[in-house]
Amino acid sequence: MVYFDNAATTMKKPETVIQAVVNAMQTMGNSSRGTHESSMNASRMIFEVRMKLDQFFHGYGADHVVFTCNSTEALNIAIRGAIPEHAHVISTDLEHNSVLRPLYELRDHAGVHLDFVKADTAGNIDYDAFEMLIRPDTKAIVCTHASNLTGLVLDLERIGAIAKKYQLIFIVDASQSAGVIPINMKKMNIDLLCFTGHKGLMGPQGTGGLCISDRVDVRPWKVGGTGVQSYLETQPEELPVRLEAGTLNGHGIAGLSAAIDYIEEIGIDVIHEKEQMLMKRFYDGIKDLPGVTVYGDQEKEKTAIIALNVGGEDSGKISDILSYEYGISTRPGAHCAPRMHQALGTVSQGAVRFSFSYFNTAQEVDEAVKAMEEICSKRFV
Amino acid sequence: MVYFDNAATTMKKPETVIQAVVNAMQTMGNSSRGTHESSMNASRMIFEVRMKLDQFFHGYGADHVVFTCNSTEALNIAIRGAIPEHAHVISTDLEHNSVLRPLYELRDHAGVHLDFVKADTAGNIDYDAFEMLIRPDTKAIVCTHASNLTGLVLDLERIGAIAKKYQLIFIVDASQSAGVIPINMKKMNIDLLCFTGHKGLMGPQGTGGLCISDRVDVRPWKVGGTGVQSYLETQPEELPVRLEAGTLNGHGIAGLSAAIDYIEEIGIDVIHEKEQMLMKRFYDGIKDLPGVTVYGDQEKEKTAIIALNVGGEDSGKISDILSYEYGISTRPGAHCAPRMHQALGTVSQGAVRFSFSYFNTAQEVDEAVKAMEEICSKRFV
Repeated sequence: MVYFDNAATTMKKPETVIQAVVNAMQTMGNSSRGTHESSMNASRMIFEVRMKLDQFFHGYGADHVVFTCNSTEALNIAIRGAIPEHAHVISTDLEHNSVLRPLYELRDHAGVHLDFVKADTAGNIDYDAFEMLIRPDTKAIVCTHASNLTGLVLDLERIGAIAKKYQLIFIVDASQSAGVIPINMKKMNIDLLCFTGHKGLMGPQGTGGLCISDRVDVRPWKVGGTGVQSYLETQPEELPVRLEAGTLNGHGIAGLSAAIDYIEEIGIDVIHEKEQMLMKRFYDGIKDLPGVTVYGDQEKEKTAIIALNVGGEDSGKISDILSYEYGISTRPGAHCAPRMHQALGTVSQGAVRFSFSYFNTAQEVDEAVKAMEEICSKRFV
Repeated sequence: MVYFDNAATTMKKPETVIQAVVNAMQTMGNSSRGTHESSMNASRMIFEVRMKLDQFFHGYGADHVVFTCNSTEALNIAIRGAIPEHAHVISTDLEHNSVLRPLYELRDHAGVHLDFVKADTAGNIDYDAFEMLIRPDTKAIVCTHASNLTGLVLDLERIGAIAKKYQLIFIVDASQSAGVIPINMKKMNIDLLCFTGHKGLMGPQGTGGLCISDRVDVRPWKVGGTGVQSYLETQPEELPVRLEAGTLNGHGIAGLSAAIDYIEEIGIDVIHEKEQMLMKRFYDGIKDLPGVTVYGDQEKEKTAIIALNVGGEDSGKISDILSYEYGISTRPGAHCAPRMHQALGTVSQGAVRFSFSYFNTAQEVDEAVKAMEEICSKRFV
């Protein structure tokens, strides 16, 4: 089976990640709940991972790294916890529902006003639009680092500079970029960096988090047991415990730790280069096939994604053929990115998304190209 | 190392649970995000686990089983999503902060009024107090199945009957009982059963959930990508997707599946019996030691927990001695159960909690008894 759905989750994990989870499941206590060896070791390990992530993202300190179960939870915490009622917020057409739905909820229940920087039919945005949309009551910019549909990478330094100029909270969805593209919170002026562990970071499902700058306050989200300050009737004030409640996924975090080590050891640039090579190899192989439309601007910086359609065929049908006749996994449909499909004109058809990881091979790409050749020729001869 | 902190987390997991997680990490796609083999298999597996949990708890159907990252998240969803503003709610002194803090938040921000059924110095409650506290605006009862400090098991059928009589929403925290004591949502008239995967269920950290009856509506909590209905601006109405957003912890859920199989295979009564035997063996060994105070009524039905103090010694000090001099893990302090400690009179001292699992042995208990004998004799000779 050829797995090209890495934008959904990286199915193949480094062996060290799996081993770290196994070790944790054999020895780990409940961190912050006890002073015995297994609990202390759990606490120590978890603190070390906070440090690693803080260094990885050039953040504001280990205690400003909050663990969540996925980036959706991180985005809910960030968007609902940092944006004040009645604020005006700027976002983009590239966003995933994990950004859109929390924003729509604020619009519907907290008097928040929204504007979206438009994507054109090539999936590109105009950076000047951010500044043009700013009003006196604008309080935040919320955007993805990279589209999960076209792969387009946004220039976060440029957007962060605008946020800084107007003193806006800058919230970033790094679901598609963490572990693939270097992120520097400080250079990019990011206030709330939301990431997931199980995609580009190559960690286990059930992990993710939020890195917070020292410029923003985030209201507590989940409240409950924190292992310390039990007699407080509210969540303690200090980070990270302010935004974490209940037992953490220590087993998953142990795996995430090994995943970051793996990426650091191989080198994020090496990983990125290979993924880009695979993507370009695939693109070159299919771009001139009869009936193929590829979405997004291939000249811009992008993650290793190719989204396409074959003639007027429903994307689900093409994806099913790839899966059942050729054993190639892709993702069709709407990709939880409704505004992007609206911008591209692919609402009814959806699109077939191929997304490549460091563990894919040139041979697998060639297989996929061959499969596409057969599919396209059968329909357009 | 002897591990007696199973009420915090069951450190030792069945081998099949670990193996299931390993298998998942090698093969699992992202469920509900794609129609290719690894995604379909993930979706299928996750649906099967919903069915297993539904059967395990005698619930209202697989689609009424919602996955969360821990019971704290489940309790936040239940308490904040089902209880209306300005309601009167009855809870108890036995509760953990994962129940108390969400309730206090509703009190402070949603006009909710709270009353707590008192625990006496033996940690017992008076069941008549529930009915005496009911008022015209009472909308819910929220209580634990078993105290995480004394182990006292509450008679949920009895409380559920009261909830049914007055048509109250009945929310239960099963963190300490799931996998240890049989739970029947229908017989017990439970509307929202909140459980965690990593304690008595012997599953991985990062798993848990919420079983919902067909009598109650729960407002969405986390909003975001659901893999279906991408063009809806809100979470879809139907369960379970209404209350789940983003990628589930499929790896953890695979482990939870194996854990339930394990419990069903061994038999929950067999597990319960062994834990009770271990607890009683320990209790008999230490109850008459000089200076020992054991908390809670040992004549009542309880989970396998013994909470004690040695003279006036700080519980942390005794727990540290047990850990560092004898390699025995326990949990001192407040246990996130402030009202219970207030009821027992142990606020400043805390208590040393020993909690036993199916994987502990009589030999380990005897070691702990011997350690306690030495500790007590050194202080009271």
